Amino acid sequence: MTLQVRPRLVTLEGGEGAGKSTVLEALRDALVAAGEEVVCTREPGGTPLAERIRGLLLEPAGAAGHEAPAPETELLLMFAARAQHVRGTIEPALARGAWVISDRFTDASFAYQGAARGGDPRFIAELERNVVGITPGLTLLLDVPVAVGLERARGRGGVDRIESEADEFFESVREAYLGRAQAEPDRIRVVDARQPAGTVATQAVALLRAYREALR
Amino acid sequence: MTLQVRPRLVTLEGGEGAGKSTVLEALRDALVAAGEEVVCTREPGGTPLAERIRGLLLEPAGAAGHEAPAPETELLLMFAARAQHVRGTIEPALARGAWVISDRFTDASFAYQGAARGGDPRFIAELERNVVGITPGLTLLLDVPVAVGLERARGRGGVDRIESEADEFFESVREAYLGRAQAEPDRIRVVDARQPAGTVATQAVALLRAYREALR
Repeated sequence: MTLQVRPRLVTLEGGEGAGKSTVLEALRDALVAAGEEVVCTREPGGTPLAERIRGLLLEPAGAAGHEAPAPETELLLMFAARAQHVRGTIEPALARGAWVISDRFTDASFAYQGAARGGDPRFIAELERNVVGITPGLTLLLDVPVAVGLERARGRGGVDRIESEADEFFESVREAYLGRAQAEPDRIRVVDARQPAGTVATQAVALLRAYREALR
Repeated sequence: MTLQVRPRLVTLEGGEGAGKSTVLEALRDALVAAGEEVVCTREPGGTPLAERIRGLLLEPAGAAGHEAPAPETELLLMFAARAQHVRGTIEPALARGAWVISDRFTDASFAYQGAARGGDPRFIAELERNVVGITPGLTLLLDVPVAVGLERARGRGGVDRIESEADEFFESVREAYLGRAQAEPDRIRVVDARQPAGTVATQAVALLRAYREALR
């Protein structure tokens, strides 16, 4: 089973504080202005059950009333949520012709549960093939130095279990994302997210417009 | 990575209404009487987080406030709970010399999520190798015809999401369990669970005693 490309599935990736939420809104507005139906969603999550799984993944262990997941548990919970998200939300939307913009998707598991957490990338690819089966047509990677991103994210407050990792964890995440972008330059386009939020959004929208034009 | 046999890990398998709870108590009592430390546990579950995952798996969809999991989601949630169970409960107990008796383990995923739900057994074996890594020294399969087991289970009331499947689902479960017992006759011992509960328990305890003697 090989991965099927879904041209109207667009994913946003990036570390903490990269500004994904602002960009997601700008992308949605641009597509809606062009007359498209757009479904905005996120991972982990995107269906009621997947959002419950998100809760198990992100609650800080002390507050959660249960222990933190082992790395293998975290990886499988992420893919359980993703399996549900693809079947319950993403595929039905694509099937009726809508665009889907997801705040994170499978690339994030290679970066977080793989590179940063030590998960075997071959096993992660096996999970992708067996339970996800699809890959986005376009992925925008909002790249920002770790220190800058963390300062922004922590300034927001309300840090979750994964956001409270050490800086080296996020350095591994960033390197893994950039490595994936190098390996798949046509699908994964990098935006320099050190720039002001408005500039980042404008560049992201321009990339999406060019991609959409090329599809037609 | 091959599976490592854990001699003091004993698992109980069987369909609905096979009488696992009664047998589990009898096995525990026999080991305690022989001076052993025994940890009794169950799947899905066995740690606080894994019990939360169990809730997501077994709540009937209507009552749960979220949709039922897709087959792939169910499979990954089962293995997420199992990964946590092995690391948080089973391995620490075995490491200090205790026996562990688990009401269900990986065989159940081959039977339920594999044979009955249509999951690819090669992928399930891949999950087993990558996130479980261990296999019980002894598995007791309590075998009972589906109609008999379901009558007992439904007589108890409080049927969960999986227990409310159609009869053919449980026929597939039973066949898969018996097929696994045929393939691994040394590890998986079948007990005829149509017999009275006391007889079933006596036979199970005799099998465990003989197994323990052979280990020494």
